[in-house]
Amino acid sequence: MSSTPQPGTPRTASDLDPAIAARLKRGADGLVPAVAQQYDTGEVLMLGWMDDEALHRTLTTGRCTYWSRSRQEYWVKGDTSGHIQLVKSVALDCDADTVLVKVDQTGAACHTGDRTCFDADVLFLGQ
Amino acid sequence: MSSTPQPGTPRTASDLDPAIAARLKRGADGLVPAVAQQYDTGEVLMLGWMDDEALHRTLTTGRCTYWSRSRQEYWVKGDTSGHIQLVKSVALDCDADTVLVKVDQTGAACHTGDRTCFDADVLFLGQ
Repeated sequence: MSSTPQPGTPRTASDLDPAIAARLKRGADGLVPAVAQQYDTGEVLMLGWMDDEALHRTLTTGRCTYWSRSRQEYWVKGDTSGHIQLVKSVALDCDADTVLVKVDQTGAACHTGDRTCFDADVLFLGQ
Repeated sequence: MSSTPQPGTPRTASDLDPAIAARLKRGADGLVPAVAQQYDTGEVLMLGWMDDEALHRTLTTGRCTYWSRSRQEYWVKGDTSGHIQLVKSVALDCDADTVLVKVDQTGAACHTGDRTCFDADVLFLGQ
């Protein structure tokens, strides 16, 4: 199968390992949430979305790749900003419906310039 | 408004702070993904889903509460297993479409008995 993206549509037909594709449980939109975590500090950096092809690219290129729901296209994190995510490990959860990617994040993960996307809007902070 | 759950339907009408509800960006199913992280070790424990009312309860009861997509009901983590999640902090991401809850997890977060839901199915582990 070709790995050329079909613009505008997340894909289940991809070069993803069939053994992984067979157990991946996607949402109605064909996507699974992907949590990016800084591998050494443990910071949760952001949450993105992956279709099969984005997961395949994340597993094989060393660069974390998402499906942008707003732009409806593949998004290699850092291609525009330089704030790349080098992939250290990838795991599925027990239900095979969520991905955890441990990465080495260059600079800010958030487009606002914050280190993580969760820095600015704290709703509750206990003692 | 009453906080009595309406079984089978995630709710946007809830007792959630209107200022938070106004900026929360829910999926087509009325839910947002919620990442649970162990507050001190940084372990990503699991990903669940919240509607407005589940977020409200998480913010106000001290116990992490999800909307179970499989059972279509509210799910106070640990009510059955004893493996509760005490809420330490709650944050929204920059797009207000994802929640990060830092918790103190009692025992295993995963129903399989693993500490986290991401322990068993590692797809890639780099050097």
